[in-house]
Amino acid sequence: MPIDNSLRIRPAVENDMPLIVSLVNALADYEKLEGPDAAAVERLRKHGFGEPCYFKVLLAEIDGRAAGYAFYFFTYSTFLAKPTLYLEDLFVLPEYRKRGVGYLLMKELAKIAVNEDCGRLDWAVLDWNQNAIDFYNRLGAVQLNDWIVCRLTGEPLTNLAKE
Amino acid sequence: MPIDNSLRIRPAVENDMPLIVSLVNALADYEKLEGPDAAAVERLRKHGFGEPCYFKVLLAEIDGRAAGYAFYFFTYSTFLAKPTLYLEDLFVLPEYRKRGVGYLLMKELAKIAVNEDCGRLDWAVLDWNQNAIDFYNRLGAVQLNDWIVCRLTGEPLTNLAKE
Repeated sequence: MPIDNSLRIRPAVENDMPLIVSLVNALADYEKLEGPDAAAVERLRKHGFGEPCYFKVLLAEIDGRAAGYAFYFFTYSTFLAKPTLYLEDLFVLPEYRKRGVGYLLMKELAKIAVNEDCGRLDWAVLDWNQNAIDFYNRLGAVQLNDWIVCRLTGEPLTNLAKE
Repeated sequence: MPIDNSLRIRPAVENDMPLIVSLVNALADYEKLEGPDAAAVERLRKHGFGEPCYFKVLLAEIDGRAAGYAFYFFTYSTFLAKPTLYLEDLFVLPEYRKRGVGYLLMKELAKIAVNEDCGRLDWAVLDWNQNAIDFYNRLGAVQLNDWIVCRLTGEPLTNLAKE
């Protein structure tokens, strides 16, 4: 994998919020979804840089310009009795692809996972995203095909929460 | 769902560690896996009741005896810009099944999720565990069949972490 010499990875700080929002919007565009509205942007600021802090962000920059990002947080494996680094979002702007941005973001996440004594680095990929699946396979990722992700949201969640 | 009148759900505290370990061992037995060794038990204590705190535990008791438990923590949805309550383990001792233990644990988790302004309650189930899948479906859960869970662990993880 050729890596652009001017590529740098760094943890995001609160002042990076405009940059983060522009990248989140670019990902939403790419997925043909709505980006966050003003209230959601304020929640992202509070949840990423306030207390409790729900997630962390790595920024990738090429020549000082934002090229991609990773949102992550720590989950936990009771089986290993160790934390897991969970990668929630990984995105590289289309114009900066094929320069090692995704690879270097994954490498930095792996370093953080090892430093924090995590037993695993986990994430989920959409089953039609073959480019991403091939990329992850080249890193040595395994796919947990026997697990089904389940979700309660909306009315079923609020109904169950009622007395 | 008939619910046993003497069933109570409460958050676990550090003094519950022996109880938690006995339940984790019962789950390991059920799954024909090794339970946590002494070092893993100490890590569970540190990670559940120290700082940083990686997970929380709900205990279900019938007539004051441990009947089941749930391990959970908060993840994050950048799409919703809200936390998610993630259920890592749900287990009911075989002798206490069909008394509403799992249902009341899920109900308590849903309440916590709503109180903490979570947009979702997520978890994963093994695809052969049809009893569990049927139970979750009755609660109104949806299955995210288009997502594949990926994992880096062991040598691929430590290799990627190297300079």
